[in-house]
Amino acid sequence: MSDIEDALRAAAAKVDRTLDELLPKPSGIEGRVAEAMRYATLSGGKRFRPFLVLCASSLFRTNESGALRVAAAIEMVHSYSLVHDDLPAMDDDDMRRGQASCHVKFDEATAILAGDALLTLAFEVISAPATHENPDVRCRLVQALATAAGGQGMVGGQMLDLRAADEDLTIAGVSRLQRLKTGALIAFACESGAILGRASREARQALRGYAHDLGLAFQIADDLLDADGDAKEAGKAVGKDAAAGKATFVSTLGLDRARTQAVMLAEQATDHLDLFDKKAEPLRKIVQFVVDRRH
Amino acid sequence: MSDIEDALRAAAAKVDRTLDELLPKPSGIEGRVAEAMRYATLSGGKRFRPFLVLCASSLFRTNESGALRVAAAIEMVHSYSLVHDDLPAMDDDDMRRGQASCHVKFDEATAILAGDALLTLAFEVISAPATHENPDVRCRLVQALATAAGGQGMVGGQMLDLRAADEDLTIAGVSRLQRLKTGALIAFACESGAILGRASREARQALRGYAHDLGLAFQIADDLLDADGDAKEAGKAVGKDAAAGKATFVSTLGLDRARTQAVMLAEQATDHLDLFDKKAEPLRKIVQFVVDRRH
Repeated sequence: MSDIEDALRAAAAKVDRTLDELLPKPSGIEGRVAEAMRYATLSGGKRFRPFLVLCASSLFRTNESGALRVAAAIEMVHSYSLVHDDLPAMDDDDMRRGQASCHVKFDEATAILAGDALLTLAFEVISAPATHENPDVRCRLVQALATAAGGQGMVGGQMLDLRAADEDLTIAGVSRLQRLKTGALIAFACESGAILGRASREARQALRGYAHDLGLAFQIADDLLDADGDAKEAGKAVGKDAAAGKATFVSTLGLDRARTQAVMLAEQATDHLDLFDKKAEPLRKIVQFVVDRRH
Repeated sequence: MSDIEDALRAAAAKVDRTLDELLPKPSGIEGRVAEAMRYATLSGGKRFRPFLVLCASSLFRTNESGALRVAAAIEMVHSYSLVHDDLPAMDDDDMRRGQASCHVKFDEATAILAGDALLTLAFEVISAPATHENPDVRCRLVQALATAAGGQGMVGGQMLDLRAADEDLTIAGVSRLQRLKTGALIAFACESGAILGRASREARQALRGYAHDLGLAFQIADDLLDADGDAKEAGKAVGKDAAAGKATFVSTLGLDRARTQAVMLAEQATDHLDLFDKKAEPLRKIVQFVVDRRH
């Protein structure tokens, strides 16, 4: 196992403990929603976005317990988006992270509510004094998360994705879709470290540039996995994009050019980190890991 | 038309203008989600919760433009909850506020996403500097809204409501369901005025007590309307609770006792306002209006 995999696992273990502490314990008749929130959030996942939060915040003078709360909040938002995206009315996926999707395990109503509650809890966690002593920093985090996750960010990206099958997207259109659907939250993960650390504008810009290229590389890798991956390794259905007639990086660029593009973006992402010293090593390594990943 | 109806209409007009400014304008392929957000939010409604925010905040030294933003944010959260609750997997309602429900007008996927984006936008609006100059006040508002709207507030109440048909709820159970499903957000509407005005603990407690009784009276009036109301006047389907076998205040107390209970709660609610002078007159009048309403 590589260094970066060790680091990812160690971070994931910490994030999982934080999530377990922050998620409500099921109680009463309505406890079903808490059960579903836990099922959707604590059932594995690489914790890639939380890892970015922890790495980015460690570049500055920050408190790890606050960064872990932000990391957990981002994972809640990511998990809520998967729960809602998997619904029959959306992407209609029965499998997620190698097990039954939330609405299959529970039911559609519970899955919708669990998603709603996870999104709400993320804002509750970020705005609490335990996240950062300075309320201005907390408000900036709430603002940045809301912008990244909302109708002109992640939710807008999902809307675009649902309509993409009916539109003839160019490569620019596919890039824009990705930037909204997955890029915005990845960018917030990186930027949150700079917000927590009250970093210079220059440092924040560098992290934004890094996140932009990393997000694109991540999505191309995802499309490559969907195109030639193995459902068992991916832990979810694959080959669905082509079946649904969706434009992806692979369908617009072809396998070879998509691979070349991912490698180029990986190099570009790393270049943005020149501003930082050895502390940025995990952010450099994760780029390669993302491009090379097989699941 | 009574004074209080005039006041409600005047407040609603201001809130609608604020909502129109804050809601995104449809643009691009994903603009469909912005269209649905506007449809769900700007299609009428009494703006009862926003009215409470404006009345409660006017008891203290507050800035009306900030209070209007909080009022709009609460209406976004209320609208999102209606959009999700109306979905086929939930209460399956085709009519809302006298017109087609969001998922009927658009489609289920768009309705789910519009709800998600409205909830997210509410937090973006509340945490922005324009809401209050002090970031600590804004963080407290975010915290209180998230608690009221989340899995142990409004969303928990909806979960409880969905399962209520299978449970034999006592009057205490019905009260608890209401406190979560509609009471929590009404309470936040009243408390937000105190938070914005950095009111004394005593004043905040008084508003909380008022909101508690008002919320129960409001729900009993709603149940009475459902039991003997007219679908055309209500602007939504009525008689559904009994058809679904749901326990309500009317089914557990009977029509007469439910009416008596509503009147008693209205008096109790008004008593909590003794702390405040004539400025609290609209809050006193709205109680009577709620109990007497016919739609």
